Amino acid sequence: MVLNVGVIGTGNIGSDHVRRLATQVSGARVAALFDVDGERAGAVADRVGARVHSQAADVIEDIQVDAVVIASPGDTHADLVLACVAADKPVLCEKPLATTVESALKVLEAEVAHGRRLTRVGFMRRHDPGYRAVKVAVDDGSVGEPLLMHCVHRNASVPAGFTSDMSLTDSVIHEIDAARWLLGDEIVAATVVAVRPSPLATNGMRDPQLVLLETAGGAVVDVEVFLHCQYGYDVRCEVVGANGTVSLDTPTTGALTRSGRREQAVPEDWRVRFAPAYLDELQQWVDGVASGNGGGGGSSAWDGYAATAVAQACVASLSSGARTAVGLVDRPTLYA
Amino acid sequence: MVLNVGVIGTGNIGSDHVRRLATQVSGARVAALFDVDGERAGAVADRVGARVHSQAADVIEDIQVDAVVIASPGDTHADLVLACVAADKPVLCEKPLATTVESALKVLEAEVAHGRRLTRVGFMRRHDPGYRAVKVAVDDGSVGEPLLMHCVHRNASVPAGFTSDMSLTDSVIHEIDAARWLLGDEIVAATVVAVRPSPLATNGMRDPQLVLLETAGGAVVDVEVFLHCQYGYDVRCEVVGANGTVSLDTPTTGALTRSGRREQAVPEDWRVRFAPAYLDELQQWVDGVASGNGGGGGSSAWDGYAATAVAQACVASLSSGARTAVGLVDRPTLYA
Amino acid sequence: MVLNVGVIGTGNIGSDHVRRLATQVSGARVAALFDVDGERAGAVADRVGARVHSQAADVIEDIQVDAVVIASPGDTHADLVLACVAADKPVLCEKPLATTVESALKVLEAEVAHGRRLTRVGFMRRHDPGYRAVKVAVDDGSVGEPLLMHCVHRNASVPAGFTSDMSLTDSVIHEIDAARWLLGDEIVAATVVAVRPSPLATNGMRDPQLVLLETAGGAVVDVEVFLHCQYGYDVRCEVVGANGTVSLDTPTTGALTRSGRREQAVPEDWRVRFAPAYLDELQQWVDGVASGNGGGGGSSAWDGYAATAVAQACVASLSSGARTAVGLVDRPTLYA
Amino acid sequence: MVLNVGVIGTGNIGSDHVRRLATQVSGARVAALFDVDGERAGAVADRVGARVHSQAADVIEDIQVDAVVIASPGDTHADLVLACVAADKPVLCEKPLATTVESALKVLEAEVAHGRRLTRVGFMRRHDPGYRAVKVAVDDGSVGEPLLMHCVHRNASVPAGFTSDMSLTDSVIHEIDAARWLLGDEIVAATVVAVRPSPLATNGMRDPQLVLLETAGGAVVDVEVFLHCQYGYDVRCEVVGANGTVSLDTPTTGALTRSGRREQAVPEDWRVRFAPAYLDELQQWVDGVASGNGGGGGSSAWDGYAATAVAQACVASLSSGARTAVGLVDRPTLYA
Ligand SMILES: [Mg+2]
Ligand SMILES: [Mg+2]
Ligand SMILES: [Mg+2]
Ligand SMILES: [Mg+2]
Repeated sequence: MVLNVGVIGTGNIGSDHVRRLATQVSGARVAALFDVDGERAGAVADRVGARVHSQAADVIEDIQVDAVVIASPGDTHADLVLACVAADKPVLCEKPLATTVESALKVLEAEVAHGRRLTRVGFMRRHDPGYRAVKVAVDDGSVGEPLLMHCVHRNASVPAGFTSDMSLTDSVIHEIDAARWLLGDEIVAATVVAVRPSPLATNGMRDPQLVLLETAGGAVVDVEVFLHCQYGYDVRCEVVGANGTVSLDTPTTGALTRSGRREQAVPEDWRVRFAPAYLDELQQWVDGVASGNGGGGGSSAWDGYAATAVAQACVASLSSGARTAVGLVDRPTLYA
Repeated sequence: MVLNVGVIGTGNIGSDHVRRLATQVSGARVAALFDVDGERAGAVADRVGARVHSQAADVIEDIQVDAVVIASPGDTHADLVLACVAADKPVLCEKPLATTVESALKVLEAEVAHGRRLTRVGFMRRHDPGYRAVKVAVDDGSVGEPLLMHCVHRNASVPAGFTSDMSLTDSVIHEIDAARWLLGDEIVAATVVAVRPSPLATNGMRDPQLVLLETAGGAVVDVEVFLHCQYGYDVRCEVVGANGTVSLDTPTTGALTRSGRREQAVPEDWRVRFAPAYLDELQQWVDGVASGNGGGGGSSAWDGYAATAVAQACVASLSSGARTAVGLVDRPTLYA
Repeated sequence: MVLNVGVIGTGNIGSDHVRRLATQVSGARVAALFDVDGERAGAVADRVGARVHSQAADVIEDIQVDAVVIASPGDTHADLVLACVAADKPVLCEKPLATTVESALKVLEAEVAHGRRLTRVGFMRRHDPGYRAVKVAVDDGSVGEPLLMHCVHRNASVPAGFTSDMSLTDSVIHEIDAARWLLGDEIVAATVVAVRPSPLATNGMRDPQLVLLETAGGAVVDVEVFLHCQYGYDVRCEVVGANGTVSLDTPTTGALTRSGRREQAVPEDWRVRFAPAYLDELQQWVDGVASGNGGGGGSSAWDGYAATAVAQACVASLSSGARTAVGLVDRPTLYA
Repeated sequence: MVLNVGVIGTGNIGSDHVRRLATQVSGARVAALFDVDGERAGAVADRVGARVHSQAADVIEDIQVDAVVIASPGDTHADLVLACVAADKPVLCEKPLATTVESALKVLEAEVAHGRRLTRVGFMRRHDPGYRAVKVAVDDGSVGEPLLMHCVHRNASVPAGFTSDMSLTDSVIHEIDAARWLLGDEIVAATVVAVRPSPLATNGMRDPQLVLLETAGGAVVDVEVFLHCQYGYDVRCEVVGANGTVSLDTPTTGALTRSGRREQAVPEDWRVRFAPAYLDELQQWVDGVASGNGGGGGSSAWDGYAATAVAQACVASLSSGARTAVGLVDRPTLYA
């Protein structure tokens, strides 16, 4: 039994997902796809023998499509997920689930009304071996009760057009999800601290930023997001518990020693750093869908909603300069 | 176009290969398989929808089998590879290519007579990202002319029945191939140095052993092989060049700090350590066969022959206590 | 020429200083000392052949004392330093210079009136090889313009009687000085963020705390202070610049690999971690005094005043929960 | 009570010792010194207020000299130590104790006849915190019975005039002593393995060399010595036991991350790397002499003799190309 997957959006990450589904993920094939750039869609489809549709909705409604991957621009996500729920098709939606809290809520409500979880949000870090080791150490009590979490999220640079808000909604949102997942706790407030911008930041971006997140239980998470750090892609995380700490290692392959220095390479970008995580995410999703459970271990529509709500509070705090409370609706029993 | 692979031997590594071919490798399926334990063969075949044959030869001769993976016991390898060559079918043979120099030579001669390279030997380390980074640093001149190579090869323990000779023919053979490949040089002599055996070594094994390999160009490789090190699986390698060195890192995911210690986990065994390498090896082979080149980048029958010859020199040295020259035949132009 | 040093306070750190001055520091001897516990003073004095005085003031006024080390409780520091200035004697005062901004200002004013710098504050981290390497990398432009600084300051535990305020005035004050020194910038605001206290924190302490410091130039420093971390003494620091970062390594001597783990020891306490820094601090001070410059490279009364002012802002912020501005007087030209 | 030390030889290491004794070591002063270069001797003496003698023997016989440090060229050591024994004065002799086995034996015999241990050989690694941590782990059973030891000894370069033999007698001799000390075992055979010389090695030196040392108990030590490695000073050591291993860390202060690389500095030379060890060595010696025990914890004349004997076996092996047995005399009870 092969799962027929439809893919909406075949830009950077979408075409990566198509390639993985076609060549590395077991039990799946790409049956159909759509992109606003028809030529790009055609080229990607040719490589994997998929049908090209002229509208995103057609992918979802395609009778031969069993499940959908959404990798189109973020502001299209919520409506597409709603269509998937309406069509009763499992969907893996790239983060964010929605760009507004309101639209995220609509997805929640639709899924609750539908009575079954169909949505998974593409927070791939939950599938990274390093993050999983942190999760194990937190959950098995190795570090004691978690009190603090320190995060660093750096890119060498970001494309033109990237804004200060996007640092929060597109980058920090990964730490938001990771913190909720690792600490097993909701985030109730966010504060963005103004930092002197790097002279190398483009577009007048506020970069770096320092974000503080507070959980319901009183743990505090600090996140440095710095998207023009120049030197490479660097994601770090340390959870500080009452009697120990656990932290990620940056994956390295080896060391070169010469000219008075021992050197280890830093990953170039997130594709290099998280390639195994993306693959595991897709495989777990395909396996989960195939076994009828919607893809265990990943993040639900609730997780997507909560992350969007926290990211929006960060945006508000960036604008106001003040600590901003995050008001979540009650968690539906579907997501208990 | 899907490559139909036949697999001979479905023990530990064979069933791993079947699983990978069926679920992770793109462009391949397991069409047929054989194992001396028919029940085991049947169970593995059921999981992937493969045919079971009652003899190894039938797998090779199966008209629906395009290429063959050999993962049966080492002393069966040479004859099976010969049969693949006779049948003009590409073959990925787990190391060793042969257990005697004579039978390895027969494979060489058959392939030379056949006039086309069909054989690839499963030295998976050539596909490990760490080893590849070492290779790049050696080849691009980052460390200068290579002079020395230090290797460590440790297992927590080995199964009952493992012998002192097998430390050389089954374990050190990986370092033999890695040294030849990384240094781009043939090994011309081997010396096994007697070390006090660990009191925890079973079966009266000489364990650890220290092996010295000399290359034609005068570089020296030392290898510690220690198969009852108790603490985990640990493979290290450092190439020392005229103006720098390059070394492997042991892959780690993170660090746990508690009770006065910062701790990083050591891989449990070779499956954990080299899982990505095995997968890459199979994918490269499948891609290579599909594109008609027999699987570029891996080790040839010549490499398998040379490794067997060096391993046999090690065995002779272990027995005699003396430095033992390795006499290789001239390299046929097929392997130039 | 040997510098005759008088030491006031021979508790933990004071007796350490006496021992160092007597046995490890070149060009100095301990001529006289005082402690409120006369018996303790006598025992320490016997070991080094020093005179014991019955009052702190007598040490300062002792005609045979060339320079003074103050290691008595913090609330006695300012008056003792004032007495040293009045006596025109160089003084190394353990941090803090003063426990109130007002008394710190009195020291400043006295020294300015005196017209010559006599005071050095014992911020030993400026003498740690790791911190100095960070300083070099910041100053030589290796990391570009500094934008952020992340600090961690953890003790396994603190003595009974240690309070939440003392986390700021006795522990974080080290980071305050380090940040000012490394970034070459004054701190203009402080915010203490409430974190869920560790269940293992004693005395109802707020522990850990997260402190944000903002510099005049817009750089932001975050400090985790956690004084019941259980596992050891852990001080870290990373300065993030516009094109790179530089961070401390925790000094280690080696690694033990066993039972599936590679382990490195964490220093037990600050004495172990900063022993070489304390020694260098004393030697530099003695050399500086001997050469008539008051001990170059260390922190001045201005540094001690600024650190006290920032620490007091932290205490105010802990109490109010609000960001608290630090109002410094104009820097006298004596400290330009 | 201050120990009056006489120093013979004020070249690189001798003048370092003078400086340390004068400024960093407690309980000692440099009373007298000698160097073949009288001008150099005078300059060094001036800095520390020592008397200059016109002959080495005069330093030893100086009635105001309590103990002697020998840092003159290696071939003068044995005779000077003999003179110290004759004068009943404790002596710290830089390695080697002697340049021939015969002269080392004479020292042994003289000391045995004298009936009291006066000689300590300057193997400073026994005072390095890293080596000491390895010693503790071996002695407390953390790694189980030691079976193998891997050593690396690299210098960026060596002065003109340094020879292949000196690699063994001046450099590897440190590993010889370290191995004997760490493993608690005598070395009974040595083999020097020919390695292709680095094209950057000067003076036609065989560099690098690979040395194998076998202990009486059957443990094997391999030593890479490479004195033109270009990149810095790098000393490593790993002891492999039956159930774990323990290794040195190279001391580092921090990491600089920029341009795709995380970099840590390698020490420039042995002075940087082992400065704390040299200081501890001198202090322990001074304390030991002062307390009448001759300086506990360091290496005795027996250790110096054994190291010389092993180094000479290495030289013989380098010349003959063969494994060379080390024949030690019976250990006198004075060194039990
Ligand atoms: Mg994602
Ligand atoms: Mg293999
Ligand atoms: Mg201090
Ligand atoms: Mg020495």
